[in-house]
Amino acid sequence: MSLLDLPAGAWRATHPPASTRRPRLPEFERGSVWLVGAGPGDPGLLTLLAVRALEEADIIVHDALVSPEILDFARPDVELDDVGKRAGRPSPRQEEINARLIRHARRGLRVLRLKGGDPFVFGRGGEEALDLAAAGVPFRVVPGVTSGLGGLAYAGIPATHRGLGNSVTLVTATDSRGELPEDLDWAGLARARSTVVFYMGLRKVDRVAANLLAAGRDAATPAAIVSAASTPRQTAIYSTLGELAADAARFDPAAPALIVVGEVVGLADALAHGDSAMASLAAAL
Amino acid sequence: MSLLDLPAGAWRATHPPASTRRPRLPEFERGSVWLVGAGPGDPGLLTLLAVRALEEADIIVHDALVSPEILDFARPDVELDDVGKRAGRPSPRQEEINARLIRHARRGLRVLRLKGGDPFVFGRGGEEALDLAAAGVPFRVVPGVTSGLGGLAYAGIPATHRGLGNSVTLVTATDSRGELPEDLDWAGLARARSTVVFYMGLRKVDRVAANLLAAGRDAATPAAIVSAASTPRQTAIYSTLGELAADAARFDPAAPALIVVGEVVGLADALAHGDSAMASLAAAL
Repeated sequence: MSLLDLPAGAWRATHPPASTRRPRLPEFERGSVWLVGAGPGDPGLLTLLAVRALEEADIIVHDALVSPEILDFARPDVELDDVGKRAGRPSPRQEEINARLIRHARRGLRVLRLKGGDPFVFGRGGEEALDLAAAGVPFRVVPGVTSGLGGLAYAGIPATHRGLGNSVTLVTATDSRGELPEDLDWAGLARARSTVVFYMGLRKVDRVAANLLAAGRDAATPAAIVSAASTPRQTAIYSTLGELAADAARFDPAAPALIVVGEVVGLADALAHGDSAMASLAAAL
Repeated sequence: MSLLDLPAGAWRATHPPASTRRPRLPEFERGSVWLVGAGPGDPGLLTLLAVRALEEADIIVHDALVSPEILDFARPDVELDDVGKRAGRPSPRQEEINARLIRHARRGLRVLRLKGGDPFVFGRGGEEALDLAAAGVPFRVVPGVTSGLGGLAYAGIPATHRGLGNSVTLVTATDSRGELPEDLDWAGLARARSTVVFYMGLRKVDRVAANLLAAGRDAATPAAIVSAASTPRQTAIYSTLGELAADAARFDPAAPALIVVGEVVGLADALAHGDSAMASLAAAL
């Protein structure tokens, strides 16, 4: 039984609520914009605020990474505005998206700007929020589980682990031109005892690995490529930094994908065993 | 109206589901352990999987950072096992917590190990999962919104922002002895154009700031201390790296607190305006 797949009346009869002090979620007001993270893909990782936004929105401005299973929470009469972009292709103009959000809000709609992951982690939510603030449009930011942390958990990889990774750095491998950013601090990223997660790096895995190796990171460092993290299409390639590019060429994983480098990747073998959700992964390769 | 504060029957009558293809969440099986992140504090940031785990658990092994509002989702007859620890004090032995999880599971209970934030981001979830795997206890990891990303959003601080922060590093300022870790890479953390978030650093803010300054980070870099992020008790001190320690001494913020250093902190002034949830913050100082 769950809150979702049974009528709530049935669920309540079995498990009466502990009290009536259930949290009251804020109103999604007409003429406002909610910038909402949908998490890495599994609808089970939607937050209660994200579900509320989906259920109440008049229009959803979403990107390509938001799955049909998640949009299925929306009202049947919701208007969908797909402004999707894919890693590797140049982005559509962000200014145009921002202008649309403002236009929709000024029509008096409840506007849901829905993104994969978290809007403030490589989601350009800050840019949208600044334009909304400048236009005087009320908005709310609803964080989501970012793929580079929560998605990796589904592949058995903890972002941090005592003795193996005392910090984690999230970095994008694709800038607004679709290129590897020129100002990445490879020497910093190559330092030991830290986990590094690259977003949108699939088509640049050769250069990501080569740059880290050139900056001194050990070729034997465990590394992985996790595709479509937390979805039924998830695959993971567990490798080493030295062999990552060759393994990527051999297995040709699908986008979107995360590249993760660090000793914590070595735990996946043990951690993937315990969780039935991960059982299919070992078989995938 | 919301899924939570009205009987779902009433909610359904108003917004019938788009289809019957609502996601089926996995069963919480007897004799298994779910390692679940509760997010930074706002119950609205609980995931659907976390809510399910709370509703179905026979026993909840939780830490001090999980609020009563969140535990209120649990069954009235749930057994609570508080193994809380606080930053700055030595941790209780992790081995004892792991042993308890195994013991509870072997009693045939549905065991919820509930943590603030995300279990794999300084939550020691990996250590618990490894022991469960070794003991043959089935487990599942349910990621949560980590405080150092999602909590900061409630203070108007995006973790990344084009041109201001092209990466974000999450690091703990307290090791298992309760001390500032000795092997932190201050030179790496001091590099420009990256956002750095310290977890559990409140009592070490003097040394954190001094070490970053000594390693070359500019004293004018915007910096903030965010306490009790995303809760009604949230406060934020917006300052600069050079003045952060003095401001912390002056305002004496409460634990738990995040320290964030980077140009993105400078956006809070604009971003806090747009969101009613943040309105109280400007007044707080």
